[in-house]
Amino acid sequence: MTSVIDPKAIGKPQRSRRHVRTLTGYLPETDSSGKEKWPRGEEKIWKECSRHLDEDVQSITKSVVNHVQTSLARQAYNIDDLGAYQAAALSVRDNLLVNWNDTQLHYTRKAPKRAYYLSLEFLMGRTLDNALLNLGLKSQYKDGIKELGFSLEDILEQERDAALGNGGLGRLAACYLDSSASQDLPLWGYGLRYKYGIFQQLISPEGNQLEAPDPWLDNQNPWELPRLDVTYDVRFYGHAERIGETGRATWSGGQEVLAVAYDVMIPGCGTKNTNNLRLWESKPKRGFDLNSFNAGNYEGAVESSNSAAAITSVLYPNDHTTFGKELRLKQQYFWTAASLADILRRFKNLGKPISEFPDFVAIQLNDTHPTLAIPELMRILVDEEELRWDKAWEIVTNTFFFTNHTVLPEALEKWPVPLLEHLLPRRVPERHLQIIYDINMQFLQAVEKKFPGDRDRLARMSIIEEGVPKQVRMANLACIGDRKVNGVAELHSELVRTTIMKDFVEFYGVSKFANVTNGITPRRWLDQCNPELSTLISKTLGIDKTVWLKDLTKLEGLLAHTEDKKFRDEWAAIKQRNKERLAHHVQTTLGLTVNTHAMFDVQIKRLHEYKRQTLNILGVIHRYLTLKAMTPEERKKTNPRVVFFAGKAAPAYYIAKLTIRLIVNVARVINDDPDTKNYLSLYFLPDYSVSLAEVLIPASDISQHISTAGTEASGTSNMKFCLNGGLLLGTVDGANIEIAEEVGESNVFFFGHLTPAVEDLRYQHLYHPVPVEEKSPALANVLNQVSAGLFGDGGVYEPLLNTIRQSDYYLITDDFDSYISALNMVDEAYLDKDEWVKKSIRTTAKMGKFSSDRAIMDYAQEYWNIEQTPVPSS
Amino acid sequence: MTSVIDPKAIGKPQRSRRHVRTLTGYLPETDSSGKEKWPRGEEKIWKECSRHLDEDVQSITKSVVNHVQTSLARQAYNIDDLGAYQAAALSVRDNLLVNWNDTQLHYTRKAPKRAYYLSLEFLMGRTLDNALLNLGLKSQYKDGIKELGFSLEDILEQERDAALGNGGLGRLAACYLDSSASQDLPLWGYGLRYKYGIFQQLISPEGNQLEAPDPWLDNQNPWELPRLDVTYDVRFYGHAERIGETGRATWSGGQEVLAVAYDVMIPGCGTKNTNNLRLWESKPKRGFDLNSFNAGNYEGAVESSNSAAAITSVLYPNDHTTFGKELRLKQQYFWTAASLADILRRFKNLGKPISEFPDFVAIQLNDTHPTLAIPELMRILVDEEELRWDKAWEIVTNTFFFTNHTVLPEALEKWPVPLLEHLLPRRVPERHLQIIYDINMQFLQAVEKKFPGDRDRLARMSIIEEGVPKQVRMANLACIGDRKVNGVAELHSELVRTTIMKDFVEFYGVSKFANVTNGITPRRWLDQCNPELSTLISKTLGIDKTVWLKDLTKLEGLLAHTEDKKFRDEWAAIKQRNKERLAHHVQTTLGLTVNTHAMFDVQIKRLHEYKRQTLNILGVIHRYLTLKAMTPEERKKTNPRVVFFAGKAAPAYYIAKLTIRLIVNVARVINDDPDTKNYLSLYFLPDYSVSLAEVLIPASDISQHISTAGTEASGTSNMKFCLNGGLLLGTVDGANIEIAEEVGESNVFFFGHLTPAVEDLRYQHLYHPVPVEEKSPALANVLNQVSAGLFGDGGVYEPLLNTIRQSDYYLITDDFDSYISALNMVDEAYLDKDEWVKKSIRTTAKMGKFSSDRAIMDYAQEYWNIEQTPVPSS
Ligand SMILES: Cc1ncc(COP(=O)(O)O)c(C=O)c1O
Ligand SMILES: Cc1ncc(COP(=O)(O)O)c(C=O)c1O
Repeated sequence: MTSVIDPKAIGKPQRSRRHVRTLTGYLPETDSSGKEKWPRGEEKIWKECSRHLDEDVQSITKSVVNHVQTSLARQAYNIDDLGAYQAAALSVRDNLLVNWNDTQLHYTRKAPKRAYYLSLEFLMGRTLDNALLNLGLKSQYKDGIKELGFSLEDILEQERDAALGNGGLGRLAACYLDSSASQDLPLWGYGLRYKYGIFQQLISPEGNQLEAPDPWLDNQNPWELPRLDVTYDVRFYGHAERIGETGRATWSGGQEVLAVAYDVMIPGCGTKNTNNLRLWESKPKRGFDLNSFNAGNYEGAVESSNSAAAITSVLYPNDHTTFGKELRLKQQYFWTAASLADILRRFKNLGKPISEFPDFVAIQLNDTHPTLAIPELMRILVDEEELRWDKAWEIVTNTFFFTNHTVLPEALEKWPVPLLEHLLPRRVPERHLQIIYDINMQFLQAVEKKFPGDRDRLARMSIIEEGVPKQVRMANLACIGDRKVNGVAELHSELVRTTIMKDFVEFYGVSKFANVTNGITPRRWLDQCNPELSTLISKTLGIDKTVWLKDLTKLEGLLAHTEDKKFRDEWAAIKQRNKERLAHHVQTTLGLTVNTHAMFDVQIKRLHEYKRQTLNILGVIHRYLTLKAMTPEERKKTNPRVVFFAGKAAPAYYIAKLTIRLIVNVARVINDDPDTKNYLSLYFLPDYSVSLAEVLIPASDISQHISTAGTEASGTSNMKFCLNGGLLLGTVDGANIEIAEEVGESNVFFFGHLTPAVEDLRYQHLYHPVPVEEKSPALANVLNQVSAGLFGDGGVYEPLLNTIRQSDYYLITDDFDSYISALNMVDEAYLDKDEWVKKSIRTTAKMGKFSSDRAIMDYAQEYWNIEQTPVPSS
Repeated sequence: MTSVIDPKAIGKPQRSRRHVRTLTGYLPETDSSGKEKWPRGEEKIWKECSRHLDEDVQSITKSVVNHVQTSLARQAYNIDDLGAYQAAALSVRDNLLVNWNDTQLHYTRKAPKRAYYLSLEFLMGRTLDNALLNLGLKSQYKDGIKELGFSLEDILEQERDAALGNGGLGRLAACYLDSSASQDLPLWGYGLRYKYGIFQQLISPEGNQLEAPDPWLDNQNPWELPRLDVTYDVRFYGHAERIGETGRATWSGGQEVLAVAYDVMIPGCGTKNTNNLRLWESKPKRGFDLNSFNAGNYEGAVESSNSAAAITSVLYPNDHTTFGKELRLKQQYFWTAASLADILRRFKNLGKPISEFPDFVAIQLNDTHPTLAIPELMRILVDEEELRWDKAWEIVTNTFFFTNHTVLPEALEKWPVPLLEHLLPRRVPERHLQIIYDINMQFLQAVEKKFPGDRDRLARMSIIEEGVPKQVRMANLACIGDRKVNGVAELHSELVRTTIMKDFVEFYGVSKFANVTNGITPRRWLDQCNPELSTLISKTLGIDKTVWLKDLTKLEGLLAHTEDKKFRDEWAAIKQRNKERLAHHVQTTLGLTVNTHAMFDVQIKRLHEYKRQTLNILGVIHRYLTLKAMTPEERKKTNPRVVFFAGKAAPAYYIAKLTIRLIVNVARVINDDPDTKNYLSLYFLPDYSVSLAEVLIPASDISQHISTAGTEASGTSNMKFCLNGGLLLGTVDGANIEIAEEVGESNVFFFGHLTPAVEDLRYQHLYHPVPVEEKSPALANVLNQVSAGLFGDGGVYEPLLNTIRQSDYYLITDDFDSYISALNMVDEAYLDKDEWVKKSIRTTAKMGKFSSDRAIMDYAQEYWNIEQTPVPSS
């Protein structure tokens, strides 16, 4: 007797624990009459036992208490706020799942075309409050929780942000998911389940940013659903071998990593539709390395398995630049390979021929991060599905859509050829690289045909950039492999067409290059973060919030009420209470008292030179010097102002970190100066996050969006502030322009040079420099005071100050004076309180365009060609 | 404005998420009249919403369906057996938790003395069936599951064994937990939550054992309760510094590892009492290493955190020998430190003075693995509680109890002094080592006083063994630091007293050295694994099974029925069906057909030379050669026999692995031999486990327990076979002796030399060797046939054969002939079927003594001094 082993079975349980039916997307069997058969056991009992939404307080308390007892194994005796949060979250999760199950079943039954949003970042923030609002169960939960001895507000505060993103790009992805569900669109997101999200920002006593890890999963995450049975193998390294003369190849050896799916429920507002965000976790395919194990190195065997787990362990904390790192490239390939395999499996369940793939699948590439999906899908279609190259290429170029998020040169993703060669299966050349070369060759031949002999053009348009090493230009690949390319605001899309993609426009024609201006979800960014304003709006418009929250142009109705004094007073009172809420937050977290009678002036976003927090802090210093020079009587006539900053800097971004240090040290000096502190104070709130944004945004009177013209693709926080009735101070850049178009120039404060001037100014700085003293004596004075040590050792700040004194790439010297004038105009306007409130109302009223619902419907109709597929209420 | 950070807070969430009340063992507050106050919210609502046991089929199906929907996010459409198992398990878990919560609350309210069982191994096997039986809900679940379209039997098979142990020692710990709950004793177990349990055994085509990892947690484990809020810091390496002249020390630096508690519910049979097994997982204290992180090495930062997680990643797969490995020592210290911290916290909740510690706490050390608990408790009492040394020592020596499990010299745990010095905080010497030295010095002074000038004795009794390097003798430390020492069977305890602990008996007197013969839980090892026999017994005795299962001496009542033919026929028919169940199992898992009309002869246990699987396989070969030499007519008169082996060998145990190879290759030859295969066949069942034991044991007619006399401390599988009516063939060793005392020598088959002869025989082998040919021509013939290549290349087996031909430490040559005679007696006896069944009944009837209930009550009364604390049914 022997038991012969199959070496492939090693590490797997003896009996196979997989079963096709465990995956989502089953095909219900039907009887001869076409009626669906009940799949299992007694239909009546299954149905009787099934759970429905908990809609009354009694079933809610029961469900919460049951989770306390069972999921947490606690009792009334030993439950605290965190435990109560967990139990409530689990109970809400149960409700979400009822809808989630119905939605997935409905989509499978209907088999509509689906869209997939591939994004390396999803900056979700907290979930509980959002889920309660979208389910329409907030007040019932509030009451139920209260009966159990807790307050809903307190337990909401226990939730930890899901911070799987750096900033705008990731938050946009989160808003789009919310809108897709709210608009009943069959869309899934695909991303990575990082074990550590964006780092936690701490400020050292010297004012330096320190980074601490963000172990957000440590207390378990009630909002994710591990689907341990939905896994794919992803291979790295190894060898590919041609199969005879077929042109296809097999790929073996190397490191096999398991992608395990975790599903996150995305509830729509006022609908049963609950979409899915699928995040992949990497795991070693076998428990541990059997070779070391059998060689007797038992401990070593375990350790070597960790390299697989490392792939999804951490989000790269860089906004706009991360390439060259092998681990990052592994993340990108791992994620696109697993997502495509999953999408393909779901498509195959439909039983359609592969040629119909683009009729059922649209894939949006959020920036160039998932561009490897293009050669990967080619590899699958050619090597596995055995399609001819041109047939495969037709499918690919009808499936993918690409969003560009930046025209900053340093942010255009490029990967060294040798790294790709090393990481993916070796053959000469590596399979994916070979596909890329083949794509490139065919493309360049077509270019040569259209523009014969234009060698410079060929060099510019090639996917491969010559040099040592050669590099793969991901944006070129994405443009060539996609059906449509879009920028994220009018100005930015125009810049895409006229700068980085100019050659491609000439080649493909302009219709391939379009625009979808970013949007924000009004559910989180108004209803959730500013509930009083939401209630006032519903009352004033006389429509239920689920209506205007899903058709945001309805806000225009507020215009009719600007002259209503009572309404304006309520509007202003809400702003005041939001300011007090922020002040309370600062008091409890930092122990500092904020003057709530001053104007709140807020700039919150990633720290980056192009966003010009430097301009803002230098302006603050200028104001401080001006105030110091005044008599006490003069000061009394000024507009008291509190300035808030928040934002993280990439850990390796030296200049950005120095800006934080300057802000913190300026704050220390001016908040302590008895002469001025009633007129000007300054706070740097550490650890900017979605949840912090939700407190800051509703409290702002004015917010700053002051990027060098042409650098900020769109911005979305500008929309959030305006939606909450905060006015905008900004440059003529990104979505600021469209906001001004909507609300009217008289309701925004613009300053600074325009985009067409930028190139020339930079040229002048380099070749015909003018000293700061001449260009802006006021700025020169500010820089000198910093150098001189007014805010501590000036030497520390020299590298930062030199970026301005020398090439001044971001045009601080050019814009400083007009910036100061704009600030003065803001002060003046604010002194006319009544007019200010009107501006505020007018701003909110005209924000309808900026709902992410508008953006997602635009994608659905103009790009993906998918249809609304509402789940019938059962 | 600044936000100054506390460096200790780095890596922790900003707000503290700990709350004392989240730990078990709260103290209910009382009002002025002494009545307990309701702690939170409205008592009425909490109580109305609380969950009770599901006792009817309807609430059971509802609960299962709800788990399908919510916990698994599936539906009737896509649920398979594994999913149904998971949903059923989660629903049973909910029921267990109701009892678990009540039990913990009751123990806290009553505050009885508690016992703690520290064991590095808990070989639990599967849980679902056991839980259903102990809750008394099996038939209801069977019906409910059926209505949903599944079979309970099939879904029970989906569960993966929890195999956190090597063999007997770990399974004993599991049986004791079951008994403690069933007997209402306030006991908790403490162990480690290994990510990988004992390796999975595979057999290669050549017959070699291969080891594969056991990623048992991959499908999530419904039976554990992560208690992410119950954590302790455990420090390794680092530096200790004296605090002034206090004699105390502080300890800082090094590696801080977090111990996170996972609780496993241990339900009692027919009682609400549900005890707890707390397993520790190691985790990096901070998400990842901040130093590398801030140095910009973002990837490296994550990787370096893995060394903390490695501590509990894998169970050492060695039975009886694992020391010298740093990781193993880390496991031991990590586990004892976390467990003691937890025990101390619970004690402190009582508000009693520390001097009363031994009045409320008894700690059983399962073998020497947790011996570091002795210096660790000394460190806590002296350094942290600031007690005087002698006061601390009094507490320690009244708290700990020590079970010795072996007298094999190679199994006596010793640790090199330099390794301890390296691992624990450095001071000169390391703090724990210093405590060990101090304990040793005081002890040796007392020895010197009693036996002046006996230097050899001092050297033998010292905790420190001289040599290069010096070693710490853990058994000596355990003996000195404990209140009582016990062996695990009468013979073994006597050997402890007369060999390894002889000097200590002379010093302390014999009363410190006692015996608790091992036991087994009849719930798993009869009711669960042999349900038909259990039903027959209840029917025959006329008592409910919950009665006799908890007072196993009631089985004696069966003796009155041995002459009842109908009863005997039923008894025999059940055995036959169990044999068929085993045959079915072999058919489905290995595809082999077993002859169920033959006698089933089983030897299943770890592969070890002392257990002498070699003797058995050589006996099989002898039988084969004998059969081959017979005429077909002669063969027809023999007793057909099927021999089963199962068991794992330590991965580095060369000789044991060679034995497996021999067994597999002998099987291959003889199962294929048409002359003999109807009379003799042989199976090696791979991957021995608790679940496999549950199928094998009820099917056995005879089982073999044939260790060299004096080497097997007790054995427990011998008891399991006998309890299921299998007869015993064995040597006069371990618990075999007591089994024979109970059932009568006429009902067991003994052979071989006795313990007192062993020493002398070994001496003869070395100094006056007699060739095998002379001692046992039959054995010599067998060895020669193997060498000659009857079972494939004989050269392969030379190292194994040489252990017998040469020093023959385990006395194969001495016992072979009497072993063969014993086998012949078994054959003869088996041919008298009626008498065999009577022997079988008599055996079962007399197994009352071997219930682990008897053993645990013995510990409770004679050692720990704890009392039964039944939870009132609410
Ligand atoms: C946490 C966080 N980061 C970044 C952003 C994007 O900000 P901006 O559009 O100013 O770059 C937002 C938007 O609100 C946010 O909430
Ligand atoms: C899996 C397993 N290993 C080891 C043992 C102990 O066996 P023995 O007492 O024969 O050493 C048992 C007892 O049944 C067991 O189930």
